[in-house]
Amino acid sequence: MATQMELARQGVVTDEMRIVAEEEGFSPEEIRDRVARGIVVIPRNVKKRFSKVEGIGEGLTTKINVNIGTSPYRMDIEEEREKLKAAISAGTDSVMDLSIGAVLKDVRQMVLEESCVMVGTVPIYQVGYELAHKKRDPIEMTIDDFLRIVEEQAQEGVDFMTIHAGTTKRALELMEQESRVLNIVSRGGSLLAAWMKKHNKENPLYEHYDEILDILHEYDVTISIGDGMRPGATVDATDRAQIEELITIGELTKRAWDKGVQVMVEGPGHIPLHLIETNIRIQKSVCNGAPFYVLGPLPTDVAPGYDHMVGSIGGALAAYFGANFLCYVTPAEHLRLPTVEDVKQGTIASKIAAHIADVAKGIASAVRKEKEMAEARRNLDWDRQIALSIDPLRARMYREQSEIGDDNVCTMCGDFCAVKRMNEIFKELGL
Amino acid sequence: MATQMELARQGVVTDEMRIVAEEEGFSPEEIRDRVARGIVVIPRNVKKRFSKVEGIGEGLTTKINVNIGTSPYRMDIEEEREKLKAAISAGTDSVMDLSIGAVLKDVRQMVLEESCVMVGTVPIYQVGYELAHKKRDPIEMTIDDFLRIVEEQAQEGVDFMTIHAGTTKRALELMEQESRVLNIVSRGGSLLAAWMKKHNKENPLYEHYDEILDILHEYDVTISIGDGMRPGATVDATDRAQIEELITIGELTKRAWDKGVQVMVEGPGHIPLHLIETNIRIQKSVCNGAPFYVLGPLPTDVAPGYDHMVGSIGGALAAYFGANFLCYVTPAEHLRLPTVEDVKQGTIASKIAAHIADVAKGIASAVRKEKEMAEARRNLDWDRQIALSIDPLRARMYREQSEIGDDNVCTMCGDFCAVKRMNEIFKELGL
Repeated sequence: MATQMELARQGVVTDEMRIVAEEEGFSPEEIRDRVARGIVVIPRNVKKRFSKVEGIGEGLTTKINVNIGTSPYRMDIEEEREKLKAAISAGTDSVMDLSIGAVLKDVRQMVLEESCVMVGTVPIYQVGYELAHKKRDPIEMTIDDFLRIVEEQAQEGVDFMTIHAGTTKRALELMEQESRVLNIVSRGGSLLAAWMKKHNKENPLYEHYDEILDILHEYDVTISIGDGMRPGATVDATDRAQIEELITIGELTKRAWDKGVQVMVEGPGHIPLHLIETNIRIQKSVCNGAPFYVLGPLPTDVAPGYDHMVGSIGGALAAYFGANFLCYVTPAEHLRLPTVEDVKQGTIASKIAAHIADVAKGIASAVRKEKEMAEARRNLDWDRQIALSIDPLRARMYREQSEIGDDNVCTMCGDFCAVKRMNEIFKELGL
Repeated sequence: MATQMELARQGVVTDEMRIVAEEEGFSPEEIRDRVARGIVVIPRNVKKRFSKVEGIGEGLTTKINVNIGTSPYRMDIEEEREKLKAAISAGTDSVMDLSIGAVLKDVRQMVLEESCVMVGTVPIYQVGYELAHKKRDPIEMTIDDFLRIVEEQAQEGVDFMTIHAGTTKRALELMEQESRVLNIVSRGGSLLAAWMKKHNKENPLYEHYDEILDILHEYDVTISIGDGMRPGATVDATDRAQIEELITIGELTKRAWDKGVQVMVEGPGHIPLHLIETNIRIQKSVCNGAPFYVLGPLPTDVAPGYDHMVGSIGGALAAYFGANFLCYVTPAEHLRLPTVEDVKQGTIASKIAAHIADVAKGIASAVRKEKEMAEARRNLDWDRQIALSIDPLRARMYREQSEIGDDNVCTMCGDFCAVKRMNEIFKELGL
C-alpha cells in the first residue's frame, strides 16, 4: 500500500491532504508538494481510525501533543480515559500513550478506540515491560522482540511511533567523555544505552533500521525518530553527544524518505533560552527540513510544580524559530504521574505557546483571533472576550468571582477604566 | 541632599551600592560607576524605610515587581496586607501600590510601613481619585494638584514613581492617525489624553517636568517614566505613536540625569513574540541604556485566566534581550482585581521568567542553581530537589500526593526511571 508520501510523489492529492489544505488555508497541491518533500507529515495509519486529521510541518499552525498512560505505580484505565477526554477537549492535536504496567495493552486499545486525534506510542516501552514482567532484564531484548511489537502496534492502528534509532555507540562514547551531570533521561535511550554497554554492540534499532522501516511503510506509520541522548538538564544542553545523535538522525531521515516513510524528528528537552534558536536551526539544516517535534523545551530546571509554564516559555520560542510540534509538559513533570487536572493544565499551556508562536509567525488565523479579542475589549464586550478565550470556562469563572454583575468595566480599575475613558472622550469629540 | 546618582558621580560608594555589589558579585566601584552612568538604579527614598536594597539594571539579575492595591469595587486593607505578604514571601523585589478608592492613603501607609522591599506608586491615580471623590472631573487636574501629591508621596517615603511625562500631544496625534483597535489602555495615559484633548494643551507633566524632577531629586525618588501610549493589544504593538513617545522618554531620561535623578523607563505591554527583541533594543538605544521596566510583556491576548503564564513567556524573552525589571501579571489580569492567590501565582510566574533569562544570560548565581538541581536529580535526592525549587511547598505537595513513600524514583516511570538505570549501569561497569 502506498504511503501519503509516495502518493504525493506520484502527484496524487489524498483526502488527508485536502483536509489539511482546507484547514490551513493552502491549496491541496501545495500540501501535496510539501508531503512529497517530507517537510510536512500527515500521520495517519492506513487503518484510518481517527477523524481529526492534521498536518505537521513547514508553514502550518503549530501542533501539540499530550502524553498520557499508566505507570507501574498507578494503573487506572478509567483515569487514563478521563485524561484523554481532558486533552481532547482542551484542544490537543495528538496523544501519545506511554503506558507501562500490566494494563498497557488495554489502555492502548481504549485510546485507539476513543481518540479522535492521531495516536503515537513508544514501542520499546512495551518490549521492556514485557521482558521485565517475565522476570527478565529488559536489556535481554532482541531485535525480533522489537520488530514484533512494532508490527503489533502498527496493526492496531498507531499513527506514529518514537524509535530511538539514532542513539549510537559513538554518541554514547561522546557522552561519557563529556561527563554530563545527568547522563541520559530518555527511558528508551537509557534502555538502549544499557543494552549497548552490556553487549558491547551497536544499537539494534540502528542496525535493523531497514526492517523497522518496512513495517512502518506497510501501515504508513510516521516514524518519530527519538533522541535518546537528549540532555536532561539545562547545564548539559547542546553538547557533542546530542549533536552527534542529531547528525545520525539526519541520515536516518533521508533513509526513511527513500523508502517513502513519513518522518518527524524528536528534540530536547532541557535547553537554556539562549540555545533554543540554535537547536531549531541545526535540526532543520541537518535533517533537511523534516518536521521538528520538541519536548517542552524547558529553559530552567528549578521550577518543579510549574514545568507546564516553563515548557510554554520554551515551546513558544521553539515554535517561533521553526519547531512544528510541541510535546506538552504538565505541572507534575519530574514529580509524579500527572492527574487529569495536570493533563488539562499542561494542554492549555502548550496551546498558549503554540498560538503565541503562530501569531509571531504571522499565521493569518492566529492573528485574526488577536484582532477579534482586541475589538471585543474596545467594545467592553465581556461575553465575546470570554468566548474568544483559550479556556472560556476559566475566564468566565474569574469574571464572575468578582461579582461585578452587568457593569461593563472590571473590578481592576472600575470607573478609572482607560478603555471606557477613551471611548467616551473619542465619542464626545466625534473622533 | 545628594542622590545615589550624584554621590556616585562624586566617587562616593554608598551603603546601598555596597549591598548591591555584594549581592550581585561585583566590586562596589563597578556598581558605583553604573549608577553614575544611569545604567543601574538603586531606588531608595532618602527616608531609607526598607531593608532589602536592590539594584536594577545592566549586568544585574533581573528584578520583578508586584502590583497590589484596592479598586473602588474592592477596598479591603487586610486583603492588601495579605497580598503584600504573599508577594514578599514568593520573592518579589518590589511592590507598587496602585490603590484607588477611599482607603487609598491607608493602604499606602500600610504598604510603606510593612514592606521590606522598595515601594512604587503612580501619583496621578491619587490626583484623579481625589478629584472624582469631590465630584469633579479628573481632567480638571492642575499641575499644582499633581505636584502636591508627588511631594506628599515622596515625603511619605515612596521609592519610585510612575510619571507619564512623555505622553505628548504629538504622540496622541500619531495614535489617532493610526487607528489602533484599542487606543489607550494606560489609566494614567488615558487621563492625560483626555486632559490634552479637552484643554487642547500639551501634557502638563511634560510642560512642568523640571518642577517634578526637583521634588523627586529632594527625596532621591527614582522616576519611572510611564508609557501612557503603550499599545493594549498585540495587533496594535510597536506603532508610530508608541515609538514617538519613547523618543520623548529618551529626552526626558537625559534631562533627569542632568538633574541627578535616577531613571527607569517603562515599556509595554502587549507585544507579539517577534517584536520583543526590537522593543528592548530600541529602548536601550534611544534611552542610552537606562534600565527598562516592562509590563509582562504579553505576546497574546486570547488567554485571559492565564495571563501570568503569557507574561512569563514574554518576560523571559524580554529580560533575555535586556529588560531589567519585569512587572508581573496575574491570572486575573483583564478580568478582575487579583486575589491573594492570584498575587502569589503572578509573582512565581515572574520569578520563573526572570530566572530563565538570567540562566540564558549566563549570570553565575542562576547557572549555579541549575547545576545544583541537575546534581540533585542525578542523585535521586528528592528533598534536595524540593529545597532547590522556586516554590518548594508546591513541589513537595506534588510529590507527596503520589504516595510514593520512601522510594527513590517517582510514579512517572517507576523502575523504568532512566536516571536510576544509568546510575546502575555506570556503577556496574565502573564508569
